[in-house]
Amino acid sequence: MIVPRLIERKRDGERLEARELRELVLAYSADRVPDYQMAALLMAIYFRGLDRTEMNALMEAMLESGKRLDLSRLPMPRIDKHSTGGVGDKVSIVLAPLIASLGVAVPMMSGRGLGHTGGTLDKLESIPGFRTALAPAEAEKQLARIGCAMLSQTAEIVPADRKLYALRDATATVEVIPLIAASIMSKKIAESLTGLVLDIKRGSGSFLPKLDDELELAQAMIDLGAQHGCPTVALVTAMDRPLGHACGNALEVAEAIAVLKGAGPPDLVEVTYALGAEMLVLATLASTREGARAMMDGAIR
Amino acid sequence: MIVPRLIERKRDGERLEARELRELVLAYSADRVPDYQMAALLMAIYFRGLDRTEMNALMEAMLESGKRLDLSRLPMPRIDKHSTGGVGDKVSIVLAPLIASLGVAVPMMSGRGLGHTGGTLDKLESIPGFRTALAPAEAEKQLARIGCAMLSQTAEIVPADRKLYALRDATATVEVIPLIAASIMSKKIAESLTGLVLDIKRGSGSFLPKLDDELELAQAMIDLGAQHGCPTVALVTAMDRPLGHACGNALEVAEAIAVLKGAGPPDLVEVTYALGAEMLVLATLASTREGARAMMDGAIR
Repeated sequence: MIVPRLIERKRDGERLEARELRELVLAYSADRVPDYQMAALLMAIYFRGLDRTEMNALMEAMLESGKRLDLSRLPMPRIDKHSTGGVGDKVSIVLAPLIASLGVAVPMMSGRGLGHTGGTLDKLESIPGFRTALAPAEAEKQLARIGCAMLSQTAEIVPADRKLYALRDATATVEVIPLIAASIMSKKIAESLTGLVLDIKRGSGSFLPKLDDELELAQAMIDLGAQHGCPTVALVTAMDRPLGHACGNALEVAEAIAVLKGAGPPDLVEVTYALGAEMLVLATLASTREGARAMMDGAIR
Repeated sequence: MIVPRLIERKRDGERLEARELRELVLAYSADRVPDYQMAALLMAIYFRGLDRTEMNALMEAMLESGKRLDLSRLPMPRIDKHSTGGVGDKVSIVLAPLIASLGVAVPMMSGRGLGHTGGTLDKLESIPGFRTALAPAEAEKQLARIGCAMLSQTAEIVPADRKLYALRDATATVEVIPLIAASIMSKKIAESLTGLVLDIKRGSGSFLPKLDDELELAQAMIDLGAQHGCPTVALVTAMDRPLGHACGNALEVAEAIAVLKGAGPPDLVEVTYALGAEMLVLATLASTREGARAMMDGAIR
């Protein structure tokens, strides 16, 4: 593998082979390819893109760079929800216990605040002593016991993605649809899910307001999920104003608890129910979205 | 200066301000900006280009990163020749002594072999004991004494260019006209020349066969020279086959000496004379190219 030749080919609009991308990503993850060569390649990808085969190869190499959760012993369906991030988005904190209470295992691997958007982990850690850095074995045990786990991406899970993401953040190469899709989906596939619901935020308060093709991003992730036995559904939801009334880590946890007590603001409840309904349908615990909503209503009551 | 924002603006096709480029290049030269950010910017420049103002700012920052030769005390015109490189191109080894013998100071800062093309320094070092790493003061003394100096780019001369060039070589960002022009011209302007002749090679054996716009490269360098008091002339010459008969360091030195003895192969003599004539006209030692050719004929005889 001669890295400058790979960069040059992508720069010139050529397709890279799956085995080339795999070798490159694994070598980068093992610190055998320097950041500056990967940065040049990422910028070439910004301009030239990656096709579906390349995007899939990139994601598979990231998966291969670390460990996966092995949740196949759990007797329940395993469904996660992922949001591309916005302001006041505390939906994960409501959905994980709510959907778990209805018989779904929800292994929710979340992130930190990014840019102006808050992070579920930061919010939860406003609860003194709350620990999100669970080892894979711990997470598996907790999921068997209570049905949900709020997890941070440990060093063991897709480390190539962690390293690539930090580099993209420093080199103005974040806003690239196939890179976003492969990054998110590598973490989700590593959770060995039986289904995934995506909340693609759209509007001025979303993480990527310049990314005006939310549908393209959604389709890319749906395709990656389908290729790896993880049926994926995406909703595009508005992020032109904060979701709910509360912004700020502790305030958002309090508002999430209010939703669980049946006293949440209507916009937050609506997004939570819309996503939760898709999770329950994917889990085959409800056959219609209306039935799923009734289940959630019952659980909250 | 927030580097990812600069990268982003260039990526999006915006112009960078001269002061921004200056600050960035000086910070990079001082190891305060990491290679990976510069690599991403270089790839963005590959796709978006640099306009004349940006190219000039880049070159001036590279100049500012180090020392210059101060040759203004020399009583003669100071003219250099630069070739973009090819196979069998030993013209510098003939021209420096030939033109110096006619009353011109020739401070010839040359390079090493690059890709498949040979380097003048490598060729000269096939002479046991030949030393090209002259400190600026040494070079100035030698120029005063014998009229020519064959120099390598020391760590003191435009260090930002050395560092940038090494990065471009490793990141597939060599073939960018404004970057090539600024790199070459920064070294030439640092020689405090009164004139410069460029030999832009064209064809399959040139260093940049994919760069099909030699005239654009030539014009960029002519513009940079004009902005810095260094009148610059460019010839575009054929590099579809090796120049002369000899390839290989020692063999090429021998062939260069043969030219000086009046026994060189016709193609090599022709390119040497064409470039030498421009040097003598720029030096105002000849008023026509025919007159300049007669002077060179006389010197060789």
